[in-house]
Amino acid sequence: MNTRGALIIIDVQVAFDDNKWGTRNNRNAEDNISKILQLWREKGWVVIHIRHTSDNPDSVFHPANKGFAIKEIVKPLDEEVIITKKVNSSFIGTNLEEYLRENDITTVVITGLTTPHCVSTTTRMSGNLGFTTYLISDATAAFGMEDQNGIYYEAETVHNISLATLHDEFATILTTEQLIYNCTK
Amino acid sequence: MNTRGALIIIDVQVAFDDNKWGTRNNRNAEDNISKILQLWREKGWVVIHIRHTSDNPDSVFHPANKGFAIKEIVKPLDEEVIITKKVNSSFIGTNLEEYLRENDITTVVITGLTTPHCVSTTTRMSGNLGFTTYLISDATAAFGMEDQNGIYYEAETVHNISLATLHDEFATILTTEQLIYNCTK
Repeated sequence: MNTRGALIIIDVQVAFDDNKWGTRNNRNAEDNISKILQLWREKGWVVIHIRHTSDNPDSVFHPANKGFAIKEIVKPLDEEVIITKKVNSSFIGTNLEEYLRENDITTVVITGLTTPHCVSTTTRMSGNLGFTTYLISDATAAFGMEDQNGIYYEAETVHNISLATLHDEFATILTTEQLIYNCTK
Repeated sequence: MNTRGALIIIDVQVAFDDNKWGTRNNRNAEDNISKILQLWREKGWVVIHIRHTSDNPDSVFHPANKGFAIKEIVKPLDEEVIITKKVNSSFIGTNLEEYLRENDITTVVITGLTTPHCVSTTTRMSGNLGFTTYLISDATAAFGMEDQNGIYYEAETVHNISLATLHDEFATILTTEQLIYNCTK
């Protein structure tokens, strides 16, 4: 792996602790992201925090609500970039692509919440925009969800199939352990 | 539904008849797309054909290979728009967004191949770019696929969960029958 890549941490915000989301898989995601973040900081590599916002005062992502805060475990340092977005893709309505291109960053490592929505959409666009993209399977998580017919799919199933649809087409999927091994060997 | 929307038909090309793709679900997708296309033509609404291309001469999507052709069943008329893309998203490296905005089209109806890759990615970007987006569940199809650990997921499972991850977040999911009913009532 090109270790000059940027670490992208998507939407690791207090909002996702709200009960409204239902059952989640992989409660270790934040711990794994924190381990990767620590490595990136030790190496002095670029860290980009993505934060979701909503104009709706009732939203758990509205800046006036406590859900807007980035979780303590991955709290940004003053020198780290924070990019705020209003839709799922971190590349739409933001300067993320411009920031990566201006800083000659061609490789990104994606982590965060949630696998089927913001993480999948950002990973798809990252790959399609030509960035060499790594997605860390155990540094992301999903919630269970219903389809348009009311059929419920478990969080773990949604997570696994979301990763399968990205594998080999948009990104290289690695575990936290594989990523850290590749960056430190 | 706002019936002034554009019908988008993604990658219904001979290339997808190649055995390399494995087992597919919903063999009726092309028939359903053809029914919707007939309605759109009768109404005189905008039809946009998206066609995948590859610079690699060995690719089934290379213009010199027979796979590049759009299938006869949805063959474009001379007056219909054809947009050629090189990645999964119909919005990246193309003028699709510009075309829709210039023609004051705010609603799109998405059909085509395949559910987890080009259809999902285009639907996600369409919703995130602010277009009112309909995705027609039985006018798209998936192939079975392996994840990064070699675990195989059936085409029908990939298809269903791809739709579930788009439902209510990026698009309204309708069947062909529901769409036609909404457009003709």
